[in-house]
Amino acid sequence: MARIAPLSGFPEWLPQDRIVEQHVLDTLRRTFELHGFSGIETRAVEPLDQLLRKGETSKEVYVLSRLQEEADDGAAARDKSQLGLHFDLTVPFARYVLENAGKLPFPFRRYQIQKVWRGERPQEGRFREFIQADIDVVGSGDLPYHYEVELPLVMAEAFGALREIGLPPVRILVNNRKVAEGFYRGIGLTDAEGVLRQIDKLDKIGPEKVAELLVNECGASEDQAKACLALAGISGSDASVIRDVRALAESHGAVTELLETGLGELEALIVAAEQRAPGVVVADLKIARGLDYYTGSVYETVLVGHEQLGSVCSGGRYDTLASDGKVTYPGVGLSIGVSRLVSRIVSGGLVTATRGVPTAVLVAVNTEETRGVSDDVAAALRSRGIPCEVAPAAARFGKQIRYADRRGIPFVWFPGEGDDAGPAGSVKDIRSGDQTDADASTWAPPAEDLHPRVVPGSAD
Amino acid sequence: MARIAPLSGFPEWLPQDRIVEQHVLDTLRRTFELHGFSGIETRAVEPLDQLLRKGETSKEVYVLSRLQEEADDGAAARDKSQLGLHFDLTVPFARYVLENAGKLPFPFRRYQIQKVWRGERPQEGRFREFIQADIDVVGSGDLPYHYEVELPLVMAEAFGALREIGLPPVRILVNNRKVAEGFYRGIGLTDAEGVLRQIDKLDKIGPEKVAELLVNECGASEDQAKACLALAGISGSDASVIRDVRALAESHGAVTELLETGLGELEALIVAAEQRAPGVVVADLKIARGLDYYTGSVYETVLVGHEQLGSVCSGGRYDTLASDGKVTYPGVGLSIGVSRLVSRIVSGGLVTATRGVPTAVLVAVNTEETRGVSDDVAAALRSRGIPCEVAPAAARFGKQIRYADRRGIPFVWFPGEGDDAGPAGSVKDIRSGDQTDADASTWAPPAEDLHPRVVPGSAD
Repeated sequence: MARIAPLSGFPEWLPQDRIVEQHVLDTLRRTFELHGFSGIETRAVEPLDQLLRKGETSKEVYVLSRLQEEADDGAAARDKSQLGLHFDLTVPFARYVLENAGKLPFPFRRYQIQKVWRGERPQEGRFREFIQADIDVVGSGDLPYHYEVELPLVMAEAFGALREIGLPPVRILVNNRKVAEGFYRGIGLTDAEGVLRQIDKLDKIGPEKVAELLVNECGASEDQAKACLALAGISGSDASVIRDVRALAESHGAVTELLETGLGELEALIVAAEQRAPGVVVADLKIARGLDYYTGSVYETVLVGHEQLGSVCSGGRYDTLASDGKVTYPGVGLSIGVSRLVSRIVSGGLVTATRGVPTAVLVAVNTEETRGVSDDVAAALRSRGIPCEVAPAAARFGKQIRYADRRGIPFVWFPGEGDDAGPAGSVKDIRSGDQTDADASTWAPPAEDLHPRVVPGSAD
Repeated sequence: MARIAPLSGFPEWLPQDRIVEQHVLDTLRRTFELHGFSGIETRAVEPLDQLLRKGETSKEVYVLSRLQEEADDGAAARDKSQLGLHFDLTVPFARYVLENAGKLPFPFRRYQIQKVWRGERPQEGRFREFIQADIDVVGSGDLPYHYEVELPLVMAEAFGALREIGLPPVRILVNNRKVAEGFYRGIGLTDAEGVLRQIDKLDKIGPEKVAELLVNECGASEDQAKACLALAGISGSDASVIRDVRALAESHGAVTELLETGLGELEALIVAAEQRAPGVVVADLKIARGLDYYTGSVYETVLVGHEQLGSVCSGGRYDTLASDGKVTYPGVGLSIGVSRLVSRIVSGGLVTATRGVPTAVLVAVNTEETRGVSDDVAAALRSRGIPCEVAPAAARFGKQIRYADRRGIPFVWFPGEGDDAGPAGSVKDIRSGDQTDADASTWAPPAEDLHPRVVPGSAD
């Protein structure tokens, strides 16, 4: 086998860093389940026509073909629709909802943590294969607004639970499509989607260029463009932000019913967030989310101090997640870019695992003939939930201790001599050198040494 | 969106059945970590030349292409080696070992639980996308035999841990390539691999046809073919099986050094298994595993009473898992076909989850104006690890109770009246109808209702 290089855009972790990733995944799952979300997993592939319904992502899709399409058995001919790897978890979820609509209870709360694939050019924080963690609530026919308040707060709690391992705080930026659209219409701009698409570029190209685009692409006057930028400049984490928007709209004679509806919703979200996740949620009127299907709240999330990484958790409300022609399924959801997050905290040294192996105890072997004694000790420890392994060879004890040391295994167990030594022996904490007599049927390591822990790194 | 049908060969579960699958995965992970295996996850794709090294699986590989290969930016030209989805976890693990050899401690113990893809024609128990759960120990340069004893016993323990949810018992069938090869050579057959390939067909086509093939394809005489079938007929779960093989070999004057080495190894495995997993491991001399790279122990596993499902856990010893030209990495490992297993126990009604949602408590809503009181109750319960959700609407209580009932949520919480009701309220067990006053800051459901449990099904 020739020299092997990593594939750009397909991240993989060493065991120690995988422990960090696994901890993040476990924490998300635990939080989502505490809030009553059911876990589902969909297949990795969807028919291409499903994946391409939205058009704009077409160039990102990986298409599958079998290496040897077997013409002789007619299999190729039966594969009417080609398959592609899903590029997010929303498209497969929409399909899953339609496929199982008769068997799911609505409103249906689900979480889904899986890999997705995009054939994009890899760059920092942007991968070709990465893990997403999504929560959505989807209704049959209708879906009350309060879920738009609830879901970002679930994510706030999930991120909060990760603070203790060293994750920086997050800021969840929220906006409401009805506010933006109501305002644009109020000042006389009809192509709200077009305006949003330009506003979405603010962070990248700056206000002057956005104003130019609004004039040239969306038919705005200079004054209208200025008003759009003024709206985009409003942000805040309490109800004053609502007053600021209303004042701006009034100064332009632009108060519409749609704007008032949106402001009412945004205010409810801000007020609830102030109480339940103080300091986390910020109304930011420039948040546009370029995607056409959002119809109410939209969300983006930045890691404080790592804003240039982009959003690590985004989503919003969509009135038509799916439709079978008779019933329409509205939804609201958010998606965490887990790989982007883990990549940053691992490579930045923000978070680390206390060891790279689950093993808490290495059971030494006196002689190969009495390996069974060591196996018995290991079985006794494991029966009480203590992860352990038996030394690979009856080498000098110094070498066996080095085996443990290289792996970060904190304890080495020395069985008694002879074939019938039983559970009595002695155990050494190889960090302190302390060694004590112990019985494998009763001894346990300190709780903090039982499993590898995920803790803030030295770079924190 | 048009009518949607499932894709054959790509299994998906409803939330209730996903809980069963998740429990199986959690149990495997816990067992593997108790035995000191580090979890890793590799990317889903490998370069095609890696995937095709073994030749015979070529027709099963799904090849990837980007929908729009962008000629203009030269990306297509840079993709020198096409990518395919991995069809097992051994090929990616071998590549991972080589890629990270300098950073891994050897012998390296790893588990890996991921989806794999094969473009095979789907049939019962055979999928195009499925989950495998692998454990392997890989050494640098050498790897002692005792790992060939240890690894099937780890799997025996994992299956044992699944017995309590209603999984039928398993039988792990073991053989040793050295025994077979030593015997074949002893009776004068040199093409041991060819003979093994025919013996592997015994269950499918029967002994007469295998004898014919041995004569026609492997150059065996009638007597030699008969001797091979006699060896394949031997099985047993104690040391007597070793004596039976030796007696057969002696009667043919076929005792070779290789045979004796193999018998010594097989005996060590059988003796250890008798002690540590009584009744689970059976030496079965017809187990061949068609794959050329096994060099010592080989393993297959059947679910007792479901033998026609085929092996649910297979593997063996390979002297060359990987090699970089200088160092060779021998290994031993087994792989559980999780989807095959879960599909059988779920669709057969052998195992079931006590409910389809994680929610233990539905917090009712008195009025939409006082939804915040219900949110407070839910937060208080969650802060003590009790999964709950708040009712979707302030409907009649009867309707809110039906919402819980349809999901299998055992408890409904009724908050006190008014905006400042606080944590006091009452909680109803909707199965028994019992309702008691309770405080959300102290009340907890019985432990068995806290999370959905996975239990034997009615068909058990």
